Amino acid sequence: MSYADGMLKEGALRGKTILVTGGGTGLGRSMGTYFSKLGATLIITSRKLDTLTETAKEIENLTGGRVHALACDVRDIAQVEQMWADAVALTGRVDVVLNNAAGNFISPTERLSTNAFNTVLDIVLKGTSQVTLTAGKHWIKEKQPGTFLNIVTTYAWTGSGYVVPSAAAKAGVLAMTRSLAVEWAKYKIRSNAIAPGPFPTEGAWSRLLPGDLVKKFDPAKKVPVGRVGDHQELANLAAYLVSDYSAYVNGEVITIDGGEWLMGAGEFNNLEAIPQEMWDMLEASRGKKP
Amino acid sequence: MSYADGMLKEGALRGKTILVTGGGTGLGRSMGTYFSKLGATLIITSRKLDTLTETAKEIENLTGGRVHALACDVRDIAQVEQMWADAVALTGRVDVVLNNAAGNFISPTERLSTNAFNTVLDIVLKGTSQVTLTAGKHWIKEKQPGTFLNIVTTYAWTGSGYVVPSAAAKAGVLAMTRSLAVEWAKYKIRSNAIAPGPFPTEGAWSRLLPGDLVKKFDPAKKVPVGRVGDHQELANLAAYLVSDYSAYVNGEVITIDGGEWLMGAGEFNNLEAIPQEMWDMLEASRGKKP
Amino acid sequence: MSYADGMLKEGALRGKTILVTGGGTGLGRSMGTYFSKLGATLIITSRKLDTLTETAKEIENLTGGRVHALACDVRDIAQVEQMWADAVALTGRVDVVLNNAAGNFISPTERLSTNAFNTVLDIVLKGTSQVTLTAGKHWIKEKQPGTFLNIVTTYAWTGSGYVVPSAAAKAGVLAMTRSLAVEWAKYKIRSNAIAPGPFPTEGAWSRLLPGDLVKKFDPAKKVPVGRVGDHQELANLAAYLVSDYSAYVNGEVITIDGGEWLMGAGEFNNLEAIPQEMWDMLEASRGKKP
Amino acid sequence: MSYADGMLKEGALRGKTILVTGGGTGLGRSMGTYFSKLGATLIITSRKLDTLTETAKEIENLTGGRVHALACDVRDIAQVEQMWADAVALTGRVDVVLNNAAGNFISPTERLSTNAFNTVLDIVLKGTSQVTLTAGKHWIKEKQPGTFLNIVTTYAWTGSGYVVPSAAAKAGVLAMTRSLAVEWAKYKIRSNAIAPGPFPTEGAWSRLLPGDLVKKFDPAKKVPVGRVGDHQELANLAAYLVSDYSAYVNGEVITIDGGEWLMGAGEFNNLEAIPQEMWDMLEASRGKKP
Repeated sequence: MSYADGMLKEGALRGKTILVTGGGTGLGRSMGTYFSKLGATLIITSRKLDTLTETAKEIENLTGGRVHALACDVRDIAQVEQMWADAVALTGRVDVVLNNAAGNFISPTERLSTNAFNTVLDIVLKGTSQVTLTAGKHWIKEKQPGTFLNIVTTYAWTGSGYVVPSAAAKAGVLAMTRSLAVEWAKYKIRSNAIAPGPFPTEGAWSRLLPGDLVKKFDPAKKVPVGRVGDHQELANLAAYLVSDYSAYVNGEVITIDGGEWLMGAGEFNNLEAIPQEMWDMLEASRGKKP
Repeated sequence: MSYADGMLKEGALRGKTILVTGGGTGLGRSMGTYFSKLGATLIITSRKLDTLTETAKEIENLTGGRVHALACDVRDIAQVEQMWADAVALTGRVDVVLNNAAGNFISPTERLSTNAFNTVLDIVLKGTSQVTLTAGKHWIKEKQPGTFLNIVTTYAWTGSGYVVPSAAAKAGVLAMTRSLAVEWAKYKIRSNAIAPGPFPTEGAWSRLLPGDLVKKFDPAKKVPVGRVGDHQELANLAAYLVSDYSAYVNGEVITIDGGEWLMGAGEFNNLEAIPQEMWDMLEASRGKKP
Repeated sequence: MSYADGMLKEGALRGKTILVTGGGTGLGRSMGTYFSKLGATLIITSRKLDTLTETAKEIENLTGGRVHALACDVRDIAQVEQMWADAVALTGRVDVVLNNAAGNFISPTERLSTNAFNTVLDIVLKGTSQVTLTAGKHWIKEKQPGTFLNIVTTYAWTGSGYVVPSAAAKAGVLAMTRSLAVEWAKYKIRSNAIAPGPFPTEGAWSRLLPGDLVKKFDPAKKVPVGRVGDHQELANLAAYLVSDYSAYVNGEVITIDGGEWLMGAGEFNNLEAIPQEMWDMLEASRGKKP
Repeated sequence: MSYADGMLKEGALRGKTILVTGGGTGLGRSMGTYFSKLGATLIITSRKLDTLTETAKEIENLTGGRVHALACDVRDIAQVEQMWADAVALTGRVDVVLNNAAGNFISPTERLSTNAFNTVLDIVLKGTSQVTLTAGKHWIKEKQPGTFLNIVTTYAWTGSGYVVPSAAAKAGVLAMTRSLAVEWAKYKIRSNAIAPGPFPTEGAWSRLLPGDLVKKFDPAKKVPVGRVGDHQELANLAAYLVSDYSAYVNGEVITIDGGEWLMGAGEFNNLEAIPQEMWDMLEASRGKKP
């Protein structure tokens, strides 16, 4: 068994229809592909219909499942409502929403225009809440159970410089997740989140940090387990959280980052830099082992 | 000494100019009044110039300090930038920004329109970030130190049903606080937050929960210390956090709620309902005291 | 697919030897049984060899796997070291340690003797740290990878009255989990925790809360999803966390409580008690839907 | 006004008797000295009566207040109970307990003996709980209000390598603080904690990190505000939390670390290392400011 293998029993998501925002590329695509392998009907959305259509075909070819592509800018409530109506029309019913669409700028905050800052808030927080309210109101009206899974970040609770609008928006998504996990549980609607650490996606890092910067700020160096994540590892966790196997997990955010945020957070973790010989000397200087 | 008295030394805020959004009424007014008593020059803003002007006069009469009133809808970046320019023109420099302006609906989330949801996000999160970026960019450009204090809620990290847009937005404000506390520290800009529990304000509770509901959901019942907060208690904490005495507190959110959120959170705190005689019987049935 | 079914692929834990403290009864037994079904060799320990031996036989009969029973009081380092040596001698190598042994008193804190308080600290915190250090030192010396999974509680971070020594000790276990997740990652040792909500075990609740109290304090009432947990749900999560599929999850505590702790924590979640008709009236009194 | 000045009104602690464990040296001494300046009667304890007696005299000479010295090893419940009885006999009543006594080893965890690990647990967690239970049982029996203030660390919630027994024990103290804040509030007993960042004390750092290591691991470098803390800053916060001015703060832990833990925790805070010119280039390469 390797962490790069799928972990759930065959057919674990059979009979479920899962909508993935930001599903045409990157992590959204990887998670969607695994859902499809496990038997789910998939709906992928993003602003780019071309990419979506191509991805849908590729996933169908790979898994033999059914994948629908629907264009939608989540910032626009009219588009969200249309997309939802289309999704329901196409598939009969949507069981799971994976809020994965996001936007980000890596920049000193004082260099961001108000417009740039608000754009990130709008895609990440307003977009997620619009999709969530549209789906939730529908499920409640139809007396149909549902499951939300929201992708956040580890800096949703610690904050982080240089990605401040994203930090604010993802924190908002996390609070919404926890709020609705409680409030909508009576309608059999469950809500959870995942906070992924560094999972490289083609183009994303190099777009955010061009040139040599990617090497200098190699994220693997900051991760205790010494590597970045494999997409299948995220897909395994996501599949668990959208499946009925996690029915008693509700309002939770699961971090999958190899220990990255804790490594920076713990006050004395930087003593890692002290070599063993120095610890030997320190022990000797104390006269005995503590 | 009583908790209803001011706690800081006389003149503790002398020489500081403090801008309070949402400063015309309620908790913003109470905090501003105490800042003025401690010697600060005050600028209060909100959408209602009438209320502001009256409040400014009343505070000036009470404290003998200088209080400026500036109308501003924080959702509108043009108004924010104008207000900031006016504040600087009036006072020479602003040293502290207290982001206190907020909006909220108490409602089942599925009953909220997209518009209502977004209005709360806009006032609370977009409004706060717009004021913060405007002030921060100015301070950085002028190489001037500054201090932010942001009012959040205890449900910023736990989430809460029935106030979901507020929960999302306040969580965003908290993440922004923590992010900028680190990123802007090099510019001598400090950022902190307060999460107040129930501090009643005239009209607010009865507006949110009309009629008998206020009695039924008496917030004091949920607070371990058995009462709601006194405005001066919040003002004391706020004055500490905007003063130089808290120079080493940075990126922190301080909860002042009498223990309310913990009382609900701790799994067995509801055993409070077991009377002492029952504990006596339980002990007896075990044969001995544990 | 039901949450009461096993979720991982057949043979997912084949080749692994897993040691479960407190493995003779209750949740430890349930998790161990599923590990054995998935192909793991099992070692179960507790103070009661009779119970262990019987459980070992029953699991073996059920799964066809190999299950070893080793008596050990985790408070006694000599017994821990002997148990570990025996475990290694019996199985060649131990790959995973599930720290599940615990003790608790439900009581007002002022009624606890110093001795009772310290007993819980000793079993839960000292016991867990002694097993952890013994296993970790061995793995480091043998240059062998390893995985820890520690069972904590949701009140490890919120605290809780009436179970205070347990709260203190479990918080300690959680901090140790996060600390070693970072420090020992370089040795390929991974550490995680689970915080289970109410998962009833035969005798446990009725021992803690005798007679009618169990009904009065029915834990299902406090859980948003409206029920207590099924042992298989915990076993599925535990199996994921001890398997290689979770290789990128490190230093994490996963809550599986149906949303219980968040329900109490969120300030306005108690508005659940307002009936729909009242919300209708509130909306009408505002003149329009928000 | 400077952060190195006392902040509370003169006489703010007059009439209060405050017991400080670990009060003979370091931060305990600094906090105690300020309490005495503010009018409190002080009781300081530690294992070393000589040091205590000298400190008591020096504080009395400085402040003109009354300071009692009582030897006590907090690990020994008999000594704790005797010390408490003496404290009550000497002063009539103790109003506040500041649990400050602690022990720590900086060491790779696998180099710690079981004995060393348990010693830290015993001083920090068992010691604090024994003092707390002794004081609390007395206050409850005498129907007397009381206040606890417990000194923890920022790694109480994040964990930290190289100080693992301290992390576990301090986490336990924090959970106890939050638990009793709720459970004992009905007896008018309030509980809070402070998590200090780097506040250098004579000998402490050089004992923990001898020789050149102190320079190499200069804690000021990890603090956003660019310096270590001044003892008076901690004393100001502690005085607030033991005074009646903080009567509505209950169950809270206040971090005073200049933002240290957040700086490490936030995923992209390390981009601080990118120089302004590089940000200029990045903006240019994107064609426009975001």
